[in-house]
Amino acid sequence: MMLINGESKRFIEAIDRGFQYGDGLFETIAVNNGRLAFFDQHLARLQIGCRKLGIPYPDVQILFSEANQLCRGVDRAILKLIVTRGVGGRGYRLPDLIHPSRVLSVHPFPDYPLEYTTEGIRARFCNTRLGLNPALAGIKHLNRLEQVLARAEWEGTAIQEGIMLDVNGSVIEGTMTNLFYVKDNRLYTAILAQSGVAGIIRQLIILMSESFGFPVIMQAFAPEQLLEADEVFVCNSIIGIWPVRQIEGQHFFVGIMTKRIQMWLHQLQHGLISVGQ
Amino acid sequence: MMLINGESKRFIEAIDRGFQYGDGLFETIAVNNGRLAFFDQHLARLQIGCRKLGIPYPDVQILFSEANQLCRGVDRAILKLIVTRGVGGRGYRLPDLIHPSRVLSVHPFPDYPLEYTTEGIRARFCNTRLGLNPALAGIKHLNRLEQVLARAEWEGTAIQEGIMLDVNGSVIEGTMTNLFYVKDNRLYTAILAQSGVAGIIRQLIILMSESFGFPVIMQAFAPEQLLEADEVFVCNSIIGIWPVRQIEGQHFFVGIMTKRIQMWLHQLQHGLISVGQ
Repeated sequence: MMLINGESKRFIEAIDRGFQYGDGLFETIAVNNGRLAFFDQHLARLQIGCRKLGIPYPDVQILFSEANQLCRGVDRAILKLIVTRGVGGRGYRLPDLIHPSRVLSVHPFPDYPLEYTTEGIRARFCNTRLGLNPALAGIKHLNRLEQVLARAEWEGTAIQEGIMLDVNGSVIEGTMTNLFYVKDNRLYTAILAQSGVAGIIRQLIILMSESFGFPVIMQAFAPEQLLEADEVFVCNSIIGIWPVRQIEGQHFFVGIMTKRIQMWLHQLQHGLISVGQ
Repeated sequence: MMLINGESKRFIEAIDRGFQYGDGLFETIAVNNGRLAFFDQHLARLQIGCRKLGIPYPDVQILFSEANQLCRGVDRAILKLIVTRGVGGRGYRLPDLIHPSRVLSVHPFPDYPLEYTTEGIRARFCNTRLGLNPALAGIKHLNRLEQVLARAEWEGTAIQEGIMLDVNGSVIEGTMTNLFYVKDNRLYTAILAQSGVAGIIRQLIILMSESFGFPVIMQAFAPEQLLEADEVFVCNSIIGIWPVRQIEGQHFFVGIMTKRIQMWLHQLQHGLISVGQ
C-alpha cells in the first residue's frame, strides 16, 4: 500500500529530484497494533532534515492523516515516509518554487528471530567507510550508497549487522543501526557531527540514560576500543535494541546495562515511563 | 521525451532503489546535430560505475538504440541516461537477482551566453564541502546532495559556478564541472581518488595534454594556490570549456593555454584529431 502525494499509486515522476539526485529524506517507523511508534520523534527529525536541506516541511496534519489511513487495521508493519524536493530546477539548481513530494508506504515487518533480542547478534567491521560531511550528518537523507555498499559486503545469516567506520577510522554506527558500548559501567556512543544517522532510538537512549543519572559519553573511538568493551548493542526503530554477542573474533556477554536499557525502551514504548521535554 | 526500460513513459516505481537510496548512476550527454558527443566515453564511465556499485551493466546495443531513438531528428539537446539497481532487496541489502532500471530522457540544451566560452565566467567558493569516499569517488552516482546544497548557496546570474573543496580544504571541482588551472605554463587539476566526479571532458583534456607533450599535474591544492594561478578554467560535457575570469575578488585573463585546449577540444569534437587508445 502506498500513497504518493495523497493518491493511491505506485509510481513517481522520474524527473522527481528524489530519483535524480537523492534530494530528499525518509523515516522508517514501526507500526504496532496500528499505532505509529515514536511518530512525533520521527516527524521532529524529518523537520530538522527539511530545514537542513531547505525543503519546505510538509503539513503535519496531512502526514498524520495519510499515515493513519495506511495503517488502519494493520497489526504490525513498517511505515516508510519519504519527502523529496519534488520536480523542478535546472540541474542541481533548486526550483524557484519547491513543491515537495511525499511517499508513504506500508511494508511487512521483518521476521527477525526473537533470539537476536535476547541472545544477541553477530557483527563484522565493514570495509566501506562513511564520508564526512557536517551538512548531511545526522539527518536521514536519501543518499545512501555508502550503506548499500557496506551491506553488500556480506551475505547469508551468520552475520546480522556490519559496523561502519568513518574515513578517519572512528567507529560510527551499523549499516542500519546506531551502536553503543559499555565499559566499566559507563555507556558510550559515537559523535554524529560529521557522519552517521542520528536514530530515534539512539536519541531516546541518550535522553533516558541522562534522566536515570548516567549520561551517555559521546566521543570518537577506534575499533580496538570497541573490541575491549564489556557490552555492545545496536538499535533502531524497527529492531529496538539488539545486544551484540560477537564482533569478528571477539565475544561479548549480554550485560546488565544492555538489559536495563532494553527494559526502559520497552516501558517507554508502552507509555510506562517518559523522557525529555 | 523519455524511455523507461524501453517504454515511452514518465513514471518510475517508487520502490526503485534509485528513488529509495540513490542506488544508481547517470550520464549527461551533449547531442549535436542528432549526434551523441563522446558517447563511447560516457558508456565507459557508466561501466566503471556499474562495476564499482555491483550493478549489472546494461546491454550496450539497447542503450545505443534507445539513445538514437530519442535523439532522432534532434538538433541540439541533452540526453540524460540513468541506470539504477532496480527494484528489490530488503532495506539496504541487495536483491538476489538485480534487474537494473534504465531511464533515458532528452532535455533542451541550456542557453548559456556565448561569452561564457569566450570571455569567461565568474565563480565563488562554496561552503558546502565534499565528503571523502574512495568507493564512490570518480563515478557519477545518484547521491548528489552535496552538489544540490552547494548550488543552493547562490542565486542570480552574477556567478556561474561554485568551486567545492573537500573536507580537508583541498579544491576538488565545480558543482557541475571539473576545474583546471595553469601556473608557469603547467596545467594542474585535482586528484579525484577520494571525492569528485571524473568528467569525460576532464579525461579527454588529460589525454590530449599528455599526447601534446605537457602532461597534466594531478595534485592536491588549496584555494590560495588556485587564486595565484595564471589561468583557470572549468569543463563538462555540456558547456565544453569555460575560462574563469573571476573567483571571489581575484581576476584572471583568458590565457593562451586555455584557448589552446578549447581549440583542441573543438577539433576533437569534429573528428579532426583523436586521443587515447
